[in-house]
Amino acid sequence: MSPHAGSELKECIDQCLACYASCEATMMHCLGLGGHHASTTHIRALTDCSKLCLTSADFMLRGSEQHMALCALCAEACGRCADECEAMEGADAVMLKCAEQCRRCAEACERMVATRV
Amino acid sequence: MSPHAGSELKECIDQCLACYASCEATMMHCLGLGGHHASTTHIRALTDCSKLCLTSADFMLRGSEQHMALCALCAEACGRCADECEAMEGADAVMLKCAEQCRRCAEACERMVATRV
Amino acid sequence: MSPHAGSELKECIDQCLACYASCEATMMHCLGLGGHHASTTHIRALTDCSKLCLTSADFMLRGSEQHMALCALCAEACGRCADECEAMEGADAVMLKCAEQCRRCAEACERMVATRV
Amino acid sequence: MSPHAGSELKECIDQCLACYASCEATMMHCLGLGGHHASTTHIRALTDCSKLCLTSADFMLRGSEQHMALCALCAEACGRCADECEAMEGADAVMLKCAEQCRRCAEACERMVATRV
Repeated sequence: MSPHAGSELKECIDQCLACYASCEATMMHCLGLGGHHASTTHIRALTDCSKLCLTSADFMLRGSEQHMALCALCAEACGRCADECEAMEGADAVMLKCAEQCRRCAEACERMVATRV
Repeated sequence: MSPHAGSELKECIDQCLACYASCEATMMHCLGLGGHHASTTHIRALTDCSKLCLTSADFMLRGSEQHMALCALCAEACGRCADECEAMEGADAVMLKCAEQCRRCAEACERMVATRV
Repeated sequence: MSPHAGSELKECIDQCLACYASCEATMMHCLGLGGHHASTTHIRALTDCSKLCLTSADFMLRGSEQHMALCALCAEACGRCADECEAMEGADAVMLKCAEQCRRCAEACERMVATRV
Repeated sequence: MSPHAGSELKECIDQCLACYASCEATMMHCLGLGGHHASTTHIRALTDCSKLCLTSADFMLRGSEQHMALCALCAEACGRCADECEAMEGADAVMLKCAEQCRRCAEACERMVATRV
């Protein structure tokens, strides 16, 4: 099992699952808006973030060795997704809220990587 | 999108994600205990429940038509997993807590199915 | 384990995995085309099909009781996705090839359900 | 999209999906054997490998930037899983066949990483 304090691990799992849910809902919202909101780049950023959040949570829940490498990739995907959502012309409340969730998840994942022992 | 009230849908998604996490952690716990706790039947019940929880949450988040059919299957898997955890000789606190989570998730999924309009 | 002949089960698992891959690649292709190809309805049909293909394959691989209920849902999603791809104005070779794969997968899933004993 | 030749990418996706299927089936087989075959270490190695194979295939299908980082993690998980299967006392034909599939998948993933441009 991970050398992390249980509460830190639990917080990161919770953030990953919340971020997965946020990205999936935002993706449908953006497809509904259409145009550049539904571009390959934007939908892919949301999808990559969603998938890495789920995979990271999964590896943390199993106490798998590779969970820190996945948290590092997840933090990267969360950062890129937040950038995408914030930078988009016409970013609305749903997208900005998703960006905030991505930032919180990225921070939680980075804390997991930083506390590596 | 679903005809369900937003709060009911959100509650069901949250229960599904919490149940997924509970089943994954309990699976590792049971493999650690070994013997009949690590039997095919028990681990499969936990895995099936975990996978259907994630898939149901996913379809609810996308507002997909088939989310109610998946909630019905998920309620079934949750019920079976809870039965499995409770009936097992030597069921400990982790397993009983997982069974409780499965029951809560089954109820939330059944409410989604019952309110079908 | 399933009462199905091994070869029939294997064929269905293979079709599900091939259909998952086809839907994911076609989704990116359609987002690239933009316009109605990137509509919520179209992308959701591809996503639902992709997810149910993976989940059905997963339950078949584990020999889980609920694999036939999932194959039934998968056949439904495959049929809807094929209809969507074929009916779309401006459907190109990628979309028509995806529709063909969806039809093959739907048939394999229906055979699993039909041979229920 | 990836700078890889299409055929190399396709080969890696196919190996990942085949390895996912092999690990899931072998997991059920090992739980059925019980004892050290059903140990946390062994089942976790199979599960980690299965999940990373699916995630890597998924990122390759979407042409996502992080697919090479995931292929690197996948190759690692495949190698560990193959070692686990081969080293186990009482490894039978199913386990040895799974180890072979893991080796093939690890090689395909390593080729993806090596050809990075």
